[in-house]
Amino acid sequence: MPLPKLDYTKLDGLVTAVIQDWQTKRVLMVGFMNEEAFARTIETGKCCFYSRSRNKQWMKGESSGHFLVVKEIRTDCDFDTLLIQAEAIGPGVCHEGYESCFAKQLNEGGEFVYVDQPTYNPNEVYQK
Amino acid sequence: MPLPKLDYTKLDGLVTAVIQDWQTKRVLMVGFMNEEAFARTIETGKCCFYSRSRNKQWMKGESSGHFLVVKEIRTDCDFDTLLIQAEAIGPGVCHEGYESCFAKQLNEGGEFVYVDQPTYNPNEVYQK
Repeated sequence: MPLPKLDYTKLDGLVTAVIQDWQTKRVLMVGFMNEEAFARTIETGKCCFYSRSRNKQWMKGESSGHFLVVKEIRTDCDFDTLLIQAEAIGPGVCHEGYESCFAKQLNEGGEFVYVDQPTYNPNEVYQK
Repeated sequence: MPLPKLDYTKLDGLVTAVIQDWQTKRVLMVGFMNEEAFARTIETGKCCFYSRSRNKQWMKGESSGHFLVVKEIRTDCDFDTLLIQAEAIGPGVCHEGYESCFAKQLNEGGEFVYVDQPTYNPNEVYQK
């Protein structure tokens, strides 16, 4: 199928991609895709991103096995953001060992503190 | 309370903010905050953003009355993205008349099509 058009101009060639668990509706992570990453996501059915810091394409799960299998893709009114419903393979999406990257909550003292429990040991999954 | 530290360096002074309905868990919109918008969000208890295209601060609901009342604020491993649970006041967040900005879904033909029904008439809410 032809690659659906998105507006990559607002973020220097990228769109924001919010990944939500298709069943629990928990937001698991937020990443960025350029057109190539979006094309790979559609082609493979697994979430692919573009890393600005490493200047490279990557598929979530390529080193951990914790793939994000695409169930549904939506975009917003401006075509510059994606909301992807995905099935998370494995115990967690966050490379720090949590189910979701959003494991830290703002408390009344004005500090972000971990409120989630780890779901796996990242040292056993990611090679140093 | 002191303003919690976030990493604004990755997006030229901004962090991405995902707004999720605190009860239904639907993702309503994605916006950007600079440090001032984040401070206003905490101070007012309502979601405030920074508009890059208009180069100004804005509070969601300031013209429509459709405020987003903050219930919980989380951040991710890198401190460069916010996930905010909010109560959406009014019938919809999207200025095009939908409950969520993510009203369009990718179909099998490779096109994004509206799958949601409008929840209000934006012409009656937003002044031209």
